Amino acid sequence: MGEARIAPGATLGILGGGQLGRMIATAAASLGLKTHVFCPDTGPAFDVAAGRTVAAYEDEDALRRFAAAIDLVTYEFENVPGRTAEILAGLVPLRPNAAALATAQDRLAEKRFAAGLGIPTAPFRAVESEADLTEALEALGTPAILKTRRFGYDGKGQVRIHAGDRPGEAYAHLGGAPAILEGFVPFTQEISIVAARSPDGAFAAYEPCLNEHRNGILNVTRLPAGIPPGVERRAVEAAEAIAASLDYVGVIAVEMFVVGDDIVVNEIAPRVHNSGHWTIEGAETSQFEQHVRAVCGWPLGATTRLGRVEMRNLIGDEIEGWAALLAEPGAHLHHYGKARARPGRKMGHVTRVSR
Amino acid sequence: MGEARIAPGATLGILGGGQLGRMIATAAASLGLKTHVFCPDTGPAFDVAAGRTVAAYEDEDALRRFAAAIDLVTYEFENVPGRTAEILAGLVPLRPNAAALATAQDRLAEKRFAAGLGIPTAPFRAVESEADLTEALEALGTPAILKTRRFGYDGKGQVRIHAGDRPGEAYAHLGGAPAILEGFVPFTQEISIVAARSPDGAFAAYEPCLNEHRNGILNVTRLPAGIPPGVERRAVEAAEAIAASLDYVGVIAVEMFVVGDDIVVNEIAPRVHNSGHWTIEGAETSQFEQHVRAVCGWPLGATTRLGRVEMRNLIGDEIEGWAALLAEPGAHLHHYGKARARPGRKMGHVTRVSR
Repeated sequence: MGEARIAPGATLGILGGGQLGRMIATAAASLGLKTHVFCPDTGPAFDVAAGRTVAAYEDEDALRRFAAAIDLVTYEFENVPGRTAEILAGLVPLRPNAAALATAQDRLAEKRFAAGLGIPTAPFRAVESEADLTEALEALGTPAILKTRRFGYDGKGQVRIHAGDRPGEAYAHLGGAPAILEGFVPFTQEISIVAARSPDGAFAAYEPCLNEHRNGILNVTRLPAGIPPGVERRAVEAAEAIAASLDYVGVIAVEMFVVGDDIVVNEIAPRVHNSGHWTIEGAETSQFEQHVRAVCGWPLGATTRLGRVEMRNLIGDEIEGWAALLAEPGAHLHHYGKARARPGRKMGHVTRVSR
Repeated sequence: MGEARIAPGATLGILGGGQLGRMIATAAASLGLKTHVFCPDTGPAFDVAAGRTVAAYEDEDALRRFAAAIDLVTYEFENVPGRTAEILAGLVPLRPNAAALATAQDRLAEKRFAAGLGIPTAPFRAVESEADLTEALEALGTPAILKTRRFGYDGKGQVRIHAGDRPGEAYAHLGGAPAILEGFVPFTQEISIVAARSPDGAFAAYEPCLNEHRNGILNVTRLPAGIPPGVERRAVEAAEAIAASLDYVGVIAVEMFVVGDDIVVNEIAPRVHNSGHWTIEGAETSQFEQHVRAVCGWPLGATTRLGRVEMRNLIGDEIEGWAALLAEPGAHLHHYGKARARPGRKMGHVTRVSR
C-alpha cells in the first residue's frame, strides 16, 4: 500500500498486545486516534484499545476483518510472521515495512544487512549443524555466543560457549534451530539509539542511552550515557544509515556495544524499545508519541532530554514494590497491569528524572 | 462503603465518557488499573477503557451490573444524578463522595457552603420567581448574573443583567429553572486551585493558575499566575478548607476571582478540571494521575511545576489547526478524538512548557 493520509479520528492497528502496544495505544489516544489491537492472547494493550481482536496471526479471515477496521497497521514486536505482514501490507499501509521486519527478525539477515552497510558487527557465522558450529568456533574462537536466528528475546534462545565446552551440547541446547555464532566483542558499554524516521525521510534520534542488563534482560537505562561525542555521532549515523537503507517508517532501536572509540551493532529492533521508556517523562516527546507521529506521516517531535534520567525495569516480583515507588517523590511508576508476575517477566518500570 | 483497599489490577469505574474520563483512564492504565466507563452516550473515554457500559444514569439494573464489575467508582462531571450516586455508593466506594457532588452541582448550595466556611463569595440571592429576581436586583444592584442552580457549564444557563434590563426577560431566558442571582465582583484576575485530598486527609495543591475565558469558556491557562504570595496562600487555604469540610477524596478544582489582596470563590468542581490540563506536561504528577492516586488511597504525587506553562483550549474548528501544532517544537497536542467539531465544543488542547 502507498502513502497513507492519516488524520485524528483514524484507527491505528497494532499487532501484539503487550506493554509496548499499551503505551503506543495511550500515546495514539492523546493524538486523537483510535487503536485496534490484534493478538493471539489478551494482554495489557487490550485494556486501552477501542477495538480488539483475539486471533491467531495465521487466521487470514481475522486479518482481513482487522484490516477493514483500521487505517494503517504497526506492530509492537518483531516476531510477526512474514505471511501475516504480507497479507496486511496488501490491504493497509504497514509501518514499519515488511522488509524491516524480515531483516530484524532474523539475526543472520540482520548481521549481513549491517555489515553490508559497512557498519561494524560482532564477527559471525551461520550455523545449521554441529559441523558448522565446530568450524565457526575454529574461525571465531571462544568465548562466543550461539543464538537462534529467530524468536530470541531477553536472553532467550542463546548459549555462551567457553573454551573447552563441547559444541554438541551447545548446539543441542538450541534444539537444532537455525543459528548464528557470534564472536567475542570486548565492549566497555552497552548503549542503544532510539530514533524515528518519517515517510519523507526525516530522521530524529534521541541521545544514546547506557543500558545495563541482568540475566540477559534490560535492567537499567541511564542518560546521559557519558560516551565521547565521536562515539555518539557514529552511533547515531549507524542508526540513520540502517533506517534509511530499510526505508524505515516509525521508531527503531539499535542496540550497540561501545568498543574503544567505535560502536558495534548488536541488534536492531523494528519497534519502540524498552531502552526508550525513559522518554515518557525524560524527553520532550515520548518514543510512543514519536512512533505514532512517524507512522501517521506527521512531523516528528522534539527529542530533547529534560534532565538526568534513570529508567529501571520492574521484573518478576520486583513489581511488589509498587506502593513504595508511589510514595517516592519524583519516581514515575508504570505498572503494566499483567495478571501474573512470573520470574523474568517485565511487569512495569520506574523512571526518575533529575531536572 | 468504607475503606477501599485498591491495588494495581483493580478496576476503576468512571461515570461520564468525555475527555476528562479519557485522560483519567489513560492515567489509571499507567498505574496498572483497568477502567470501566459508564455513560448514556459513547464518547472519547470509551476508546481507552477496558469495560464500557452505555446506559442511562437512571438504569438501576445497569448501575448494579456496573458496580459488580468495578472496585471503586469516580466521575468526570458534576451532574451525576443524586440517586445514581446513592445507588453506587451503597455498592462500591464512591470517590469523591455524594455530599461533595450534591454541594458542587447546585450553585446555591455551593455558595451557602463556602459562605458557611467563612470563605468570600460573590453576594448572592436565591431566585425562584420573577418577584424574587426583582427583589434580588434591588439588593445586589447591577451588573449582576442570573444563573440556573444546576446543569450550568461553560457559560451555559446564565445571563448577565445590566442597569435598565427588564428582569422578566432575564428570568424567562432561563426557562423558569431555580436560579441564583450573583452580584458584581470587581475582580482583577480569574484563578483556580487544582488540588487533591486523600482518604487520610493528606492535601496537595498545584500552584494557582491564571485563567482567561472567552464566551464563558476557558480559553487559556497560564503559570505562574503572578499573584501576590498572600493571595496565593489564601486561595490554597480556601481550597483546603473546602476539601476538608466535604471529607473530599480525589482532585478538586476551585475557581476564584482575585479582588484586591483577597480571593472570592466562584465555583467548585468536584473533579479533574480543564484548568489543570497543564499538569500533564507541566507538573511532576498530572492531575489525572493525582486523582487516581487519591481515589485509590495511594500517596499523592509531587505537584512541582516544571517551567512556565501555557495551556490553550482548542474549541470548535480551532482543532483544524492540529497539523500545525504537531509541527511546532515543544507544543504538546491533545486531541480528544471527538467526531464532530461543534462551535463552543472543547475538541482538544495544546500545552507549551518553557523550561
